[in-house]
Amino acid sequence: MQKSISKHSVKSVLAKIASNQQRNFKLDLTEAKKPTHLLPDEYDGIKLVTPERPGPKTKELLERMNKIQDMRAAHFVANFEKSKGNFIVDADDNIILDTFTQISSIPLGYNHPYLIEKFHKDPRYATSFLNRPSLGINPPHNYIDILQESFARIMPKGMTDVVTLSSGAEANENAYKVAFCRYMQIKRGGKSASKEEMDSCVLNQKPGTPNLSILSFKNSFHGRTLGALTATHSKAIHKVDFPSFNWPVCDFPQLKYPLEQYEAENKKEMDRVLEQVEKTIKLSHSPNSPWGEVAGLVVEPIQSEGGDKHAMPYFFKELRRITKENNVAFICDEVQTGGGATGKFWAHEYWGLGENGPDIVCFSKKLQAAGIFHRPEFKIDLPYRIFNTWLGDYTRALQLGAIIDVIERDRLLDLVNQTGAYMMKHMTELSKRYPGKIDNVRGAGTFIAFESNKQPELMKQMLHRGVEVGSCGTNTIRLRPMLTFHQWHANIFLQNLNETLEKL
Amino acid sequence: MQKSISKHSVKSVLAKIASNQQRNFKLDLTEAKKPTHLLPDEYDGIKLVTPERPGPKTKELLERMNKIQDMRAAHFVANFEKSKGNFIVDADDNIILDTFTQISSIPLGYNHPYLIEKFHKDPRYATSFLNRPSLGINPPHNYIDILQESFARIMPKGMTDVVTLSSGAEANENAYKVAFCRYMQIKRGGKSASKEEMDSCVLNQKPGTPNLSILSFKNSFHGRTLGALTATHSKAIHKVDFPSFNWPVCDFPQLKYPLEQYEAENKKEMDRVLEQVEKTIKLSHSPNSPWGEVAGLVVEPIQSEGGDKHAMPYFFKELRRITKENNVAFICDEVQTGGGATGKFWAHEYWGLGENGPDIVCFSKKLQAAGIFHRPEFKIDLPYRIFNTWLGDYTRALQLGAIIDVIERDRLLDLVNQTGAYMMKHMTELSKRYPGKIDNVRGAGTFIAFESNKQPELMKQMLHRGVEVGSCGTNTIRLRPMLTFHQWHANIFLQNLNETLEKL
Repeated sequence: MQKSISKHSVKSVLAKIASNQQRNFKLDLTEAKKPTHLLPDEYDGIKLVTPERPGPKTKELLERMNKIQDMRAAHFVANFEKSKGNFIVDADDNIILDTFTQISSIPLGYNHPYLIEKFHKDPRYATSFLNRPSLGINPPHNYIDILQESFARIMPKGMTDVVTLSSGAEANENAYKVAFCRYMQIKRGGKSASKEEMDSCVLNQKPGTPNLSILSFKNSFHGRTLGALTATHSKAIHKVDFPSFNWPVCDFPQLKYPLEQYEAENKKEMDRVLEQVEKTIKLSHSPNSPWGEVAGLVVEPIQSEGGDKHAMPYFFKELRRITKENNVAFICDEVQTGGGATGKFWAHEYWGLGENGPDIVCFSKKLQAAGIFHRPEFKIDLPYRIFNTWLGDYTRALQLGAIIDVIERDRLLDLVNQTGAYMMKHMTELSKRYPGKIDNVRGAGTFIAFESNKQPELMKQMLHRGVEVGSCGTNTIRLRPMLTFHQWHANIFLQNLNETLEKL
Repeated sequence: MQKSISKHSVKSVLAKIASNQQRNFKLDLTEAKKPTHLLPDEYDGIKLVTPERPGPKTKELLERMNKIQDMRAAHFVANFEKSKGNFIVDADDNIILDTFTQISSIPLGYNHPYLIEKFHKDPRYATSFLNRPSLGINPPHNYIDILQESFARIMPKGMTDVVTLSSGAEANENAYKVAFCRYMQIKRGGKSASKEEMDSCVLNQKPGTPNLSILSFKNSFHGRTLGALTATHSKAIHKVDFPSFNWPVCDFPQLKYPLEQYEAENKKEMDRVLEQVEKTIKLSHSPNSPWGEVAGLVVEPIQSEGGDKHAMPYFFKELRRITKENNVAFICDEVQTGGGATGKFWAHEYWGLGENGPDIVCFSKKLQAAGIFHRPEFKIDLPYRIFNTWLGDYTRALQLGAIIDVIERDRLLDLVNQTGAYMMKHMTELSKRYPGKIDNVRGAGTFIAFESNKQPELMKQMLHRGVEVGSCGTNTIRLRPMLTFHQWHANIFLQNLNETLEKL
């Protein structure tokens, strides 16, 4: 790891050297070579040129931008021209190891050579970008190829249809709408809406505007639009002052980690929640329901914004059973988990349900294209019900095809599993060494998190050292590296984490 | 206008010639030259090579696409490589005059040379597209330039801030959220939320989750996500089976056209609605409110999906007064009207309110970038409240800058006004000639519509002749040509409309 130190920080460097001499804990890391086969052009490591982060240029630029667009939540200003692979360069030319990746949304790394080549050589990028169609009105003649190159290749088992959309929130909103359509169709014995329903719905009146709901879980995050936000219960800052629908909320199991070690206790907790879910659905379908009738249940395979809370496959299998028995759509929100970071392309593959998985899967972020997949029995009776002007952006669908090419060509799911196991091993060591500062290390693939009683300071110190990490929940640090995060990158991360924890 | 006629349609051509000979109405059109100064590379006119539309390739491709994505609402499959300017080429190589422009969302024409050049020569396109940031977390160092080149240039008078988003629906949802924030801040005497509010909102409980509402108008369209959809009352097919918030809906004035000709009657109708709006807001703010308290009012300058319903500046001026007096945010949804098609960049400029216009303006479609603008007093107290992962797509903001370049360079607002006046004149003639088949011609710029008692057949016949038009409301035809629609294009359109009306 190279560091160029400015004269301002000589004092801090001397202090650090002194402190290093006292250190008595060293991680037994396995040496690794820089993975040039994955990313030929990456930097040799972190390089810091300003004594502080945010540096002076970031500060100046943020001040100017803030006059037109609110940038108060910014971590730092980035130079994407200079960023490469797992390293993001800030406006002050600091080279930073990025394990947060634009809130978990960069799949392969900055300026990935294969994506650059496709962008410049495949003429469909320019044509699709410059002539953005209303996909549902005038689909492009080559859209069938793009569907095959992108969505068809990653269609979850048992599913047949994609609806393309613009964001994770739009994906959730439309998943709920598909669930409502299906629920009402079953209620009507397979028929489409009656004239009375059609006439009444235009002014939000019954029976055309039914009192239906989506069941969600405490701590979940599904998006910021008012429907998705009603199902979101992550942080007050996401929610306060915004009206919501009257939809039921259940507990999410609060399990002990490592999950297998506490299997009996964890099963008991999951059973408690499952009973609550089943009761809630049945009550909602009764005349005494305090909420709208539950037409869908939405759940993340790993609750992400809410604090990286895991459950076990048993829990999701039982949710599948309960939803099926009650004609409730099982909506799996893979906006954050989808795309390979958990070690499988879809995190719900861990549940072992095969063809009998969820009814609807939401995706966005790492896939760059957003939307939902659904099972054939969720096909909508009439056209133009699940619809909007653009239906996403098909240049992003094109890009998704290229992303999948690289995931397959470079066997990135294998890499994610290798790197993830390596990180889990050493982070678990660290949690034994620094209890309180790092607890409950858990993860799937490189989708790893831990709790820390010094969360804000830890984030700040890591960025000071040139490592960007994310937070979630109240005291959790989440890692969301790219799929190209290799043991070599993990070593840089782990060394910095170890040194940071020691000094906290 | 060139036509190559296949042997299948010889019979219909002969019938047409016979019919033409009987024709006794001819529009007195002014000859115009093809505007090569605007679009050097456009086709010489409509050219039809298959006897029917949709042609065989469109049918085959739609069948294949439908297996993966619902395309049942498609008009036809397009070849965007071959489409140029105001002409869209379908999968069967028919060259069609496009006056619907991807539901009003293509600003300058297909494959516009200036946009192509920018895409290939400005390296920011590739960098921004390939490294899509979480704009609120890591804004790019050159984003300040992009803000200046795009949003700052079209900021509506009196406004200071932009929030970038992914779609018109997201723009509406976030406009409502900004209105809720502001309303609660006023209610709290300028303070941020209390601990009790923060604690309660996470599970959708009062007081943190207040019972607030957005007042909307009958026939309005604001988007398809559940919040925006609650404020939408255009068509049953948009609405049925979807739950909604309990928000009040007022009449939209049903005026007589031409508006000035019926000024006294129209004023009476507007006053009736204004009284209803004021009463509704005051009732919503009282303890007996049947709805949530009205925090915002959302209105389109011209109701578009709902049937191109116009009101007069008086109506909007009074809405401004009423909303201000009652601390209600005045949200102007310019998703369809914004970008110049009405003859002004923002349709709300017609109201003559200067600096005292709406509080929040929603935009998307023709601007390619989506979002909201708002006044300085609507700045949010804390960061991260109005937020999401991507906050739109800044490659689209870059493109918006190029679009504005062309609008300014080619004086396209002048062109829109000239072409619009020309079309209005001749379409008004047609409405006198063919009452019932074409009534109530109205418009601003080229944003023109009329009612027809033969609406579906008229659309079909126009497409058969090679002219794509749009519909809205129950019996309305809407024209949404590009900003480069010239008298030369208008002549092709008007000739075909005249001939179609004659034969209907």
